[in-house]
Amino acid sequence: MNAEIICVGTELLLGHVVNTNAAYLSKRLASAGISLYFHTVVGDNPDRLRETLRLGLLRSGIVILTGGLGPTVDDITVAAIAKTYGRPLIFSKKIFSDLKKFYKSRNLKTKEERIKLQSRAPEGAHFFKNEIGTAPGILIKEDGKVVIALPGPPHELERMFDKYVIPYLVKNGYAGNEVIKTRSIRIAGMGEPEVNNKVEDLLSMSGKETVGIYTSPGIVDLKITAKAKSERFADNAIDKLQKEIEKRLGGYIFGYDDDTLELVVGKMLKKLKLKIATAESCTGGLLASKLTDISGSSDYFHMGVVTYANWAKQHLLGVRQETLKKYGAVSKEVAAEMSTGILLLSGADIGVSITGIAGPAGGTKEKPVGLVYISVACKNSGHILPPVTKKFIFGASRQLIRTRTVLAALNMVRKIICGHF
Amino acid sequence: MNAEIICVGTELLLGHVVNTNAAYLSKRLASAGISLYFHTVVGDNPDRLRETLRLGLLRSGIVILTGGLGPTVDDITVAAIAKTYGRPLIFSKKIFSDLKKFYKSRNLKTKEERIKLQSRAPEGAHFFKNEIGTAPGILIKEDGKVVIALPGPPHELERMFDKYVIPYLVKNGYAGNEVIKTRSIRIAGMGEPEVNNKVEDLLSMSGKETVGIYTSPGIVDLKITAKAKSERFADNAIDKLQKEIEKRLGGYIFGYDDDTLELVVGKMLKKLKLKIATAESCTGGLLASKLTDISGSSDYFHMGVVTYANWAKQHLLGVRQETLKKYGAVSKEVAAEMSTGILLLSGADIGVSITGIAGPAGGTKEKPVGLVYISVACKNSGHILPPVTKKFIFGASRQLIRTRTVLAALNMVRKIICGHF
Repeated sequence: MNAEIICVGTELLLGHVVNTNAAYLSKRLASAGISLYFHTVVGDNPDRLRETLRLGLLRSGIVILTGGLGPTVDDITVAAIAKTYGRPLIFSKKIFSDLKKFYKSRNLKTKEERIKLQSRAPEGAHFFKNEIGTAPGILIKEDGKVVIALPGPPHELERMFDKYVIPYLVKNGYAGNEVIKTRSIRIAGMGEPEVNNKVEDLLSMSGKETVGIYTSPGIVDLKITAKAKSERFADNAIDKLQKEIEKRLGGYIFGYDDDTLELVVGKMLKKLKLKIATAESCTGGLLASKLTDISGSSDYFHMGVVTYANWAKQHLLGVRQETLKKYGAVSKEVAAEMSTGILLLSGADIGVSITGIAGPAGGTKEKPVGLVYISVACKNSGHILPPVTKKFIFGASRQLIRTRTVLAALNMVRKIICGHF
Repeated sequence: MNAEIICVGTELLLGHVVNTNAAYLSKRLASAGISLYFHTVVGDNPDRLRETLRLGLLRSGIVILTGGLGPTVDDITVAAIAKTYGRPLIFSKKIFSDLKKFYKSRNLKTKEERIKLQSRAPEGAHFFKNEIGTAPGILIKEDGKVVIALPGPPHELERMFDKYVIPYLVKNGYAGNEVIKTRSIRIAGMGEPEVNNKVEDLLSMSGKETVGIYTSPGIVDLKITAKAKSERFADNAIDKLQKEIEKRLGGYIFGYDDDTLELVVGKMLKKLKLKIATAESCTGGLLASKLTDISGSSDYFHMGVVTYANWAKQHLLGVRQETLKKYGAVSKEVAAEMSTGILLLSGADIGVSITGIAGPAGGTKEKPVGLVYISVACKNSGHILPPVTKKFIFGASRQLIRTRTVLAALNMVRKIICGHF
């Protein structure tokens, strides 16, 4: 049975809010093997909502609505469903007392009238519990089709959908006979055109198995999706494609699915019992912040410094004045002295340094905005190895330059750990 | 004339990509006074796309399609438009030579056949130049209605829409007679329920002027939108509501529209010629990274340290061993010694420190996950003032705790600058 999603809210049509709910539900429906053909967004307008709902019921067996369940005049979803089905709105004592309890537990003052309004649902509705918000979810079944209305706030919707709605759909035979599975292969250090050239013959968005290419700053993802009769068949199909991609891209692959570079590097450091320290200039703490994004990072993250001023580079890291004078703060030489300096200051096993020009101001012809040096110094069996320093030129905005620099630094650390330890 | 948006792409229906294009176009259409009634997402399926396009042309005067303009078999938008209008696809020499030039300039190898495929458009189409990608935009006019097809990659779509499409719509009388303007009032240090209680009577999403409440971690936004005959009338209506909101929320308002706390604090520091330094534990460099997100931050950001290990707190910041032993690393006392310590180490005018438990591990009954101390130490006319230290308890995930902590620290700095300097 195929599904469609209708998101209700003028804020979406004004562009005040990005429709992450539709993306979330889409992913979950795909995992459950339910084909999804349409998303529609419609404003807080009863006529247009009913028109959209009627169309949805004509072309889909499962219609999922999001938003418009709150206690204000703009919340029109429940009434629209009732009118579409010609069912009266019935007051539910159970919902009313649940809502009152919830408001009280959160110390929220709300008029009783409003709570009463929110306690009504079309006759014969099935409810889904909202564990972290007010409006319950509603389901109406008629002529073998279902309409499901979910609250708009993403956390509430996600919890309710995973915990109650998906199990309901599976139990009642709405989930597909086919399983859809997806795996991401994550690539760093190679741009999209190059990745594209290497796997062009595998890319396709139609058929039983599809491979899509997706980019985010500094990272390329190849997403393999397979439809099959069982998880095992889907996994087998994905494994086969994955092996082929691994053969072609080798060491550029840093992980799969939810892996991030900071997570992968963190796991390596933890496993090898290595400590890392950072010395940043243009990224201003972003590298340290990424590394410590991971719970348990105190096991391997030793310390970090953000040495924007030359004074700090000299005093904290021991960068020599002559080096700064001769080569400038953004240079291979200063980067190398910074990485060795943080290694010595911190007593860590790996020291990473970054110096560059994040812009938009501060660039020159010789040293343009986007010029970055990353250096990694390591200690192995007590010896300090000569630092490895690389030059990069990253384009675009300040934010993109900083993000790409941090990812490149993490990727350098990953490769050096693979090579050295 | 009202508009609707149709986004084409199976990746959207699989939830692999969040539909930011629809949000972007919605904002821009609202600014141009063009009412938007629907977003629809449809997959790479020719029949369903044509069905959606036909419906769009029935109910809207302007139909904007995004995606599906590339050179692969999954790119079906151009053919769907041609078939809907019954027009043949015509090869354009101009587009072909532009595309060849573009591919050459980027050193991308693509088969001539594919470029030829991408150089076709329905007879009579008007083209919009794609300055940073391959596929040009296409416009077809018939019976006073227009269909516009834009490329899917967000940067390409945004540039093309702002530079060519909006001016075209305005010039050709498609823009509305009414102007829609929006202003955000940005609030920190007060939660959504409290803000809601203070402005409840003003909140409404219908009528000429609307006020909506939006939350993101640590920040609440009140968005005022006004429809009026001219920019001046809209601005006046917004000003009136803004004044009322300012009267009620006062110092909790830190800025407007695109203002961020780091931007506002940065401007204050720059204006007062003050230098800031940071000492972070649980936020791991996120505060430094936020402060240095701003171009020109080297004028006021002096240095930062990430002292995860107690060793670093003692050696770099001079936190006393007794203090650590007696109160623990996450304590008011250690936070205060850290902020004074970074002030002395760096020679800055303001020192900010953070120590806390970001979780999910590491919490105890007395010191739960989410417990955070933020301390700000200042130097005024050469004197070091006693540090101001505050305790916070932030709920939810590691990431949310870190984000909220950084925003609370920036907000503390903002208030202290307002009070002291």
